[in-house]
Amino acid sequence: MTDFAERVLNPKTSDFAVRSLMDVDFYKFTMGQFIFNNYAGIRVKFKLINRDPTIPVADVIPEEELREHLNYVRSLTLRRTDLSFLRGMDVYGKNMFNEEYLAALGTLQLPEFDLKKRGDQFELSVEAAWEEATFWETIMLAVISELYYRNLMKRMTEYELRILYGRATDKLYGKLKLLKANGTSFSDFGQRRRHSFLWQQFALEMATDVMDGLLAGTSNTWMAFNQDLMPIGTNAHELPMVITAIAEGDEAKRKAQYEVLAHWEELYGEGLLVMLPDTYGSEQFFHNMPGDLGNHLARKWRGQRQDSGDPGEECRKFINWLKANNIDDNVIINQKINIFSDGLDVDQMISYKNEFSGKIIGTNGWGTKFTNDFNGCHPNGGDTVPGLSVTWDQVFRTFSVVVKAVEANGNPVVKLSNNINKATGSADAIAEYVRIFGHAGRVEQPVEV
Amino acid sequence: MTDFAERVLNPKTSDFAVRSLMDVDFYKFTMGQFIFNNYAGIRVKFKLINRDPTIPVADVIPEEELREHLNYVRSLTLRRTDLSFLRGMDVYGKNMFNEEYLAALGTLQLPEFDLKKRGDQFELSVEAAWEEATFWETIMLAVISELYYRNLMKRMTEYELRILYGRATDKLYGKLKLLKANGTSFSDFGQRRRHSFLWQQFALEMATDVMDGLLAGTSNTWMAFNQDLMPIGTNAHELPMVITAIAEGDEAKRKAQYEVLAHWEELYGEGLLVMLPDTYGSEQFFHNMPGDLGNHLARKWRGQRQDSGDPGEECRKFINWLKANNIDDNVIINQKINIFSDGLDVDQMISYKNEFSGKIIGTNGWGTKFTNDFNGCHPNGGDTVPGLSVTWDQVFRTFSVVVKAVEANGNPVVKLSNNINKATGSADAIAEYVRIFGHAGRVEQPVEV
Repeated sequence: MTDFAERVLNPKTSDFAVRSLMDVDFYKFTMGQFIFNNYAGIRVKFKLINRDPTIPVADVIPEEELREHLNYVRSLTLRRTDLSFLRGMDVYGKNMFNEEYLAALGTLQLPEFDLKKRGDQFELSVEAAWEEATFWETIMLAVISELYYRNLMKRMTEYELRILYGRATDKLYGKLKLLKANGTSFSDFGQRRRHSFLWQQFALEMATDVMDGLLAGTSNTWMAFNQDLMPIGTNAHELPMVITAIAEGDEAKRKAQYEVLAHWEELYGEGLLVMLPDTYGSEQFFHNMPGDLGNHLARKWRGQRQDSGDPGEECRKFINWLKANNIDDNVIINQKINIFSDGLDVDQMISYKNEFSGKIIGTNGWGTKFTNDFNGCHPNGGDTVPGLSVTWDQVFRTFSVVVKAVEANGNPVVKLSNNINKATGSADAIAEYVRIFGHAGRVEQPVEV
Repeated sequence: MTDFAERVLNPKTSDFAVRSLMDVDFYKFTMGQFIFNNYAGIRVKFKLINRDPTIPVADVIPEEELREHLNYVRSLTLRRTDLSFLRGMDVYGKNMFNEEYLAALGTLQLPEFDLKKRGDQFELSVEAAWEEATFWETIMLAVISELYYRNLMKRMTEYELRILYGRATDKLYGKLKLLKANGTSFSDFGQRRRHSFLWQQFALEMATDVMDGLLAGTSNTWMAFNQDLMPIGTNAHELPMVITAIAEGDEAKRKAQYEVLAHWEELYGEGLLVMLPDTYGSEQFFHNMPGDLGNHLARKWRGQRQDSGDPGEECRKFINWLKANNIDDNVIINQKINIFSDGLDVDQMISYKNEFSGKIIGTNGWGTKFTNDFNGCHPNGGDTVPGLSVTWDQVFRTFSVVVKAVEANGNPVVKLSNNINKATGSADAIAEYVRIFGHAGRVEQPVEV
C-alpha cells in the first residue's frame, strides 16, 4: 500500500511522472500504426493548450523540473517485454500490430520538444514526423498534470496532505460504489490529466476491487499490462485533423474524414471500429457521406464515440442515423455502441445508462474525474496558496489542458467540434473551416475537463 | 529496496512463496507444449526426493503451512497479460507457442498433490496428466526451499538476520564482481532452490547492475518478463525418462531418447536445439545413435547441456564427437555451445571459461549458488538451532532436493545419469535400465545441489 502523503513528503528519486513509453494511451499505438502505414513522415506540430488561463501552471511548476521530466521520457525506449506484449495481445484479434511497425516501435525515442515560460503559462510544443510526435500528446499532459499537483502539495503540511488524500480516497470510493449500485460500467480514460502515476494505479486497483466486472478496462497501456486489464482505445481527432489539413481544396478536405475510416478499416477488426464523428461537427459528418458509405458504416462499424455536443441528443441522433440506414432495432440494442467520453462524472454516467439502456449499448470513457478528483479535498480550501494569488480550491479543481496538432506540413490544423468552445486553431483557420464544413448542429457549452 | 531482515520479521500476507504460474522455469512451457502436442494424457507421478536426509525439512516447515502455500498455487491461473507475453515472445523465433497450447495454458490449474509427514521428511507427490503435472516440479521445489529458510529464520534475532543478509549480499556481490572481472557470463537457473522469491529478484537486479551484458538471462519466466531479461531454458531429463518408461522392449527403450530429439526439432528453432545426453549416460547416447542421426544432430543442433559427469571431460568428449561427425573446428569454436549446469559456482565457471574458450562456446547455467548461497552467513553458525539437533551452519548450507518423475502409466521411471549418485528410480528398475543401456562412462561423484 502506497502512503501517498508520505510519498509527497519523501519522494523517491525514481518517481518520474512518466516512467515508461507504455504509460501512454493505447490509442497512440493503434493510431501510431495507422500513421506509420499510411502517412509516415508528415511534419506535424503538437502544442500544449491550457483552456483555463486562470490556472497559473508556470508559476507552480519550475521550468527546469518540467524540462527534466520531459527529458527523462526522451531517454526511454520500449523494452523487449513491452514489444512482446504488444505483439502477443489478442483482445482485438491476433497480430493487430504488424512486424514493420513493431520494429519501428523497438527503436522509437520521442523527438525533441520546445519549452518556454511566458508569464504564468508554458509554451510547449513538438514538431517532428507525425508517427513520432504523436506519442507526446498524453505523455506531455500526464507530466504537466502530475508536476502541477506535486508542486502545489509541496506547500502543504503533513496534516493537510493526509486529509487531502483521505477525502479524495473517500470520494473515489463513494463514486465507485454508486456506479456499482447502479450497474454502470466504465473504462478508465484518465491517464492524461491524472493526479499522479501512483494515484491512477491506485484508482484502478480500487475500481477492480469495488466494481467486480464493471470496470471494462483502461486506456493506459502500461496499467492494462501490469494490472491485467483490457486495453481500451480506438482513435482520436488528430487523424481527420491532420489528414484534412494536408488535403487540398474544399472537396478534398470534406472527403478526408472518410479517408480515415477507410484506412482504419483496412487495419483493424470490429472491436476497434468506433467512429468519432465530431471533428468538424457530427451533423455534417453524417450528412455529407458520399454514396452508400453511410449504409456500409452503419452495418460494419460498432458505433461512435460521443465527445462533444449534448450527449443525449448526439446519442439519439446516432440511433436515428442507424435506423435511417436500415439497421434493425435488435441489432442497435444488442450490438451497436455509443461511448460517452466528454468530461464525464458519475451522475452523467448513471443518467445515460437510465436513458439509453434497451436502446443501444452505452459505455463510458471516464477520465479526469476518475483519476484526479481532488476538488474540495483541501481542508483549508478557502485560504490563498502561499506565493500565488488564488485559493487552494481554485488550484485544486480539475482544469482543461490539451495537446493538439496545430500544423501539418505547414498547413494550419483545425478542430471545430460540436462544442464551439472545444474548437482549436487560429480564428482565421476556424472561419475557413466553418465555410467548408458549415456550422450545422454546433452548440456552445462549458468545457470542464 | 527490500529490507530483507525486516520482511522476515514482518512478512506481508501476500508473501506466498510462489505468486504466479509464470514463476516457473521457462522450460516447463517449452516442454509443456512438447508434451501437449505429442504425449498428452499420459499419467505421470512426480515425487519429491530429498537427496540429503540429514536436512530435517519436515521438522522445520509446519505441514499446514506447506499445504497452504501449495494450495495457493493451485488457486492461480495465468493472466491475459501472461498469455500475451508468451504469444508475443520472439527471442526464439515468432509464434513459438501455438494457439492450441496457449488456449490450454489459459485454463491450466495445477492438479491435486498428496502430502504426508513421515518422521522429519515430507512425502510429497502429484499424479496427473503429464502436461499438467509437469508444472509442479520447480514450483514445489521453490515453495519448499523458501518455507524451509523462512521457518529457520523465525528462530533468529533481528541482529542475526541483519548479519545473515549482510553477509549473503556481500558474498553475492563478490562473486558477481569476480565473474565480471573474468569476463564470464552466465544464465540464472536458480528458481527451484532459491532462498526466496524476493531474494532471486534481488540477485537478478544486482547481476544486471554489476555484470553489464554478461548476464545472459534467467530461466525464471516471471522474472524474465518483469525484469526484461532473456528467458532461458530448453528441456530436461523428464522427457526421455517418461517416453522411455512407456516404450515397450529394450530396443524401443533405447530408441526413445532419440524420439525426443525428433519431436523437439519439429517444434522449435535453432535457439532451443540443445541436447541433454546424460539421462542414461552420455556415452551410450552418442554411441547408440542409429544411422546418420549423429551427423544430422552434430550439424543442426546448437550444442549440449552438461549436467553430470566430469564437466571438463564431458565437454571434451562432446567436442570430439562433433569432430568425428565432420564439423569444422571453426564452426565448433564459433557456433556450438556447451552449457555447464551441474552444481556450478564461480570457481568452476571461471575455470571452464579458461579451459574451453577458443574451443567451443561455453556457457553456464548458475543455479542454487547464485540464488541461495547463505553458507556460513549465520553469525553464530556453530550454535545448535533451537528445537533441532543440528547447527545453523548445517541447516543453512545448500542441499540437494529434486522433484522427479517416478511413474508413467504405471511403469517405473528411471534416470541413470553420468553420476551414479544422481540416478533416480527403485534399485530393481535401475538395475534393469543398466542392463538395457549399459554402464559405460558413468562415475561416482558427490551431489552438492
